[in-house]
Amino acid sequence: VETTLREIGLLEDVGSLLSWDQEVNLPAHGTEARAAQIAFITAEAHRRLTDPRFISLVRELLDAKDSSEEQRVNLALVLEDADRAAKLPTDFVSAQAELQSKGYAAWEEAKPRGDFAAVAPILAELIAMARREAEYVGFSGSQYNALLHSYEPYARIEDVLPVLLDLASSLAPRIAALPVQGADAAPLGFQLTVDQQRILCRKVIERIGFDFESGMLSESAHPFAETCGPHDQRLTVTFRESDPLDALYSGLHEAGHGLYEQGLRRDFHRQPLGTSVSLGWHESQSRFWENIVGRSEPFCAFLLQEMRTLFPGVDGLPLDAGPLWRNRNCITPGLIRIQADEVTYNLHIAIRTLIEVELVEGTLAVSDLPSRWEDLYQRYLGVAPRGHHEGVLQDPHWYCGLIGYFPTYTLGNLYSAMLWDKLKVEHTGVEGDIESGDFLPILSWLRNSVHAHGRRHRPLELCKVATGADFSSTAFLNYIDQKLGRLGTVS
Amino acid sequence: VETTLREIGLLEDVGSLLSWDQEVNLPAHGTEARAAQIAFITAEAHRRLTDPRFISLVRELLDAKDSSEEQRVNLALVLEDADRAAKLPTDFVSAQAELQSKGYAAWEEAKPRGDFAAVAPILAELIAMARREAEYVGFSGSQYNALLHSYEPYARIEDVLPVLLDLASSLAPRIAALPVQGADAAPLGFQLTVDQQRILCRKVIERIGFDFESGMLSESAHPFAETCGPHDQRLTVTFRESDPLDALYSGLHEAGHGLYEQGLRRDFHRQPLGTSVSLGWHESQSRFWENIVGRSEPFCAFLLQEMRTLFPGVDGLPLDAGPLWRNRNCITPGLIRIQADEVTYNLHIAIRTLIEVELVEGTLAVSDLPSRWEDLYQRYLGVAPRGHHEGVLQDPHWYCGLIGYFPTYTLGNLYSAMLWDKLKVEHTGVEGDIESGDFLPILSWLRNSVHAHGRRHRPLELCKVATGADFSSTAFLNYIDQKLGRLGTVS
Repeated sequence: VETTLREIGLLEDVGSLLSWDQEVNLPAHGTEARAAQIAFITAEAHRRLTDPRFISLVRELLDAKDSSEEQRVNLALVLEDADRAAKLPTDFVSAQAELQSKGYAAWEEAKPRGDFAAVAPILAELIAMARREAEYVGFSGSQYNALLHSYEPYARIEDVLPVLLDLASSLAPRIAALPVQGADAAPLGFQLTVDQQRILCRKVIERIGFDFESGMLSESAHPFAETCGPHDQRLTVTFRESDPLDALYSGLHEAGHGLYEQGLRRDFHRQPLGTSVSLGWHESQSRFWENIVGRSEPFCAFLLQEMRTLFPGVDGLPLDAGPLWRNRNCITPGLIRIQADEVTYNLHIAIRTLIEVELVEGTLAVSDLPSRWEDLYQRYLGVAPRGHHEGVLQDPHWYCGLIGYFPTYTLGNLYSAMLWDKLKVEHTGVEGDIESGDFLPILSWLRNSVHAHGRRHRPLELCKVATGADFSSTAFLNYIDQKLGRLGTVS
Repeated sequence: VETTLREIGLLEDVGSLLSWDQEVNLPAHGTEARAAQIAFITAEAHRRLTDPRFISLVRELLDAKDSSEEQRVNLALVLEDADRAAKLPTDFVSAQAELQSKGYAAWEEAKPRGDFAAVAPILAELIAMARREAEYVGFSGSQYNALLHSYEPYARIEDVLPVLLDLASSLAPRIAALPVQGADAAPLGFQLTVDQQRILCRKVIERIGFDFESGMLSESAHPFAETCGPHDQRLTVTFRESDPLDALYSGLHEAGHGLYEQGLRRDFHRQPLGTSVSLGWHESQSRFWENIVGRSEPFCAFLLQEMRTLFPGVDGLPLDAGPLWRNRNCITPGLIRIQADEVTYNLHIAIRTLIEVELVEGTLAVSDLPSRWEDLYQRYLGVAPRGHHEGVLQDPHWYCGLIGYFPTYTLGNLYSAMLWDKLKVEHTGVEGDIESGDFLPILSWLRNSVHAHGRRHRPLELCKVATGADFSSTAFLNYIDQKLGRLGTVS
């Protein structure tokens, strides 16, 4: 059992490296062979996990008297994973992985041209495969639940979608009440070169606790984080000349993912007790560092000080943190999810979730996706994309088969606000710590409250364990109201 | 058979990516897990290649009436490889791969500190494993032959070492006759930033025919080339502020390797007919582009023109190609192999070959390696390293288990001069082509003469096929004499 678990872990790390490398390095003509490599490695892992001999050995070990409580919890989850994986034929898993890799490559090529027609066929295939996956593993209620389970285990879309739509309804009047403002309502007034952005991003990420001896930062078309080994955590960002802080905030987000992974138990690497509990919880960590910490007033004060020290020659840095904070909190309905503020972000998620449920349930055809996208953006955010590159092609998720992933972003926002409430109670000086750049108390708290558990608790149980409260949107709405209030009064 | 060959190919490509990534990206603490990943992937490939069922299926197919001549040639070589591989236990192969990866990491850490003591134990282990490998596969004459076979199949050190030492003896009086000159005898007189070096390197490599849609260029501690897929050829260089053209010439060298790989038959990717015939032939390609083309007068004229166009603002570019050509051909005994001129380079190789034969045959202990190195450098080149970083630690080869590799560099020089003689006869306008930057005729000729054959011929047979002559040092010595003559008369 131990050998097989080790081999599966090695294969998963290698598979992650193949994906990471595809997004960061791979030459244009290398995509086909890469898809074949990923498919092969995925199949090798699946074959081991679903080997009946392995499964029966796990069962035996689970019943063995000398297994520790920890081993038993871990093995029970391995068994659960294996039983689920065994419902899928290895050939299917392999073909799906191959198509996902090819889909990513097709998206990467099509996005700059805004060429949705070029990727529509592969998207249709990916959705068909997702539906077959759901048929294989089984589901109750919506077919979508089978997919959602891969990202947010045990969640049901019948519960999640109302949360997302209620939140959208609650946020709508708040957004409507905002003063009308242009995109440059709070301009930054300074510029950073790409080299400076790179230095700043690395420096701040290191400061919040990311271990660069067990991780690295590079560039890709779409920011992401990937685990390629127990001490090999990889983050990527995209540098844009036009916004000097955009990459930093992407970096904070991805570093949030990376810190979670670096905080997992390495003695259970790639096993349930050393794995993240859900994508929603993963997003709670990334959104926590990006937003709750990153878009706070004390953090902006810290950041301003940091930039003054790093770049004494840069003109136009504000005299105090106010303008910076205001800039990072421009609440404006826009087109691009990853550049959205904390409030409207959730509308981007509601739209995507509505659409992917429809795609999976078969009530929306891929050919109608762009018009559905435009309708929903008009209705929820009042904006219209000028091309598919800022519409249906903006995110890679669907095109690389991450279907069922999107709702976890808003779940992450909701978890993160609950964590923040709890942290403030347990650690009253937290805002001062942030301002002085001392992030260790926050990281230690997150490590103990969330990271250390791995998958020991189910996502909603972890919510109770870590925050002491039942899952709800209340903390997040209060957090937003406080921020909006402060944005309205401070000038 | 086809499926297994395909899987082995996928595993080899994945293994190459893991190695490439280790040298280019891997975080410091990621090395242990990476070694385990490489060991595992290597074992999976070895297990498939040596599976008795696979071997007997290959035998059957080889005898099948409907196999084409091409398939038979390919399968016979597969069988030869498999029979040899089967003499090695998979556990041994896996442990060796793991140790090699760890050795590279240890070398990378020790080199900047010049700390030979830190890597001596792992080097001793690697040599012990190399000796065990020789015992497993068997050998006639020197134990070293078993290792040499992995790099230059069918070659025997009893034949190769005299060639290397005779060449050294022939070159010694020529070197002694050179006018005494300082390291700055022919200074370049201009500088390029690292960014400019990067642009130049990429541009020139592309110009000689390297396909960047099926390959890429990045940076690492030691320049190398690696094949990670049929359309995924990776080159690395190291940029140094102090020499504006150093990275370019490393790049030409690595691109020579890359062009060979890109010229192999992709329908036999990672199979004998789509694999390089030997390391000596590989080096013939890299040394051909780096030296025979790169250090020629017409190439220097082309390069000067290229720099004028790319960097109109750079001060100090010479008025004609003479000073550039003279600078690239400073014949001076030095300490660093990869910065050596075409003449003294072969002494660096003779030294390393002498040493590695002694290490493998057990007549030299690892602890005595530094003093042996110093003695030989004193004797052959009259120079003394100021520290191990420019002595025994300068090259990674031994520390990552590439033992038996070094002689192939000089074999490559000898092959490359023979190729050049033949090319000049078949294509009289070649020097004009180089000067005008039209490298396609050369590349096409190399593709037909060398690349297209894969491993169809043995190395010495290929020499006859490609150059029409029997292998010897004559062409190379004539080439050197012509160059020395011209360097002596042109001012």
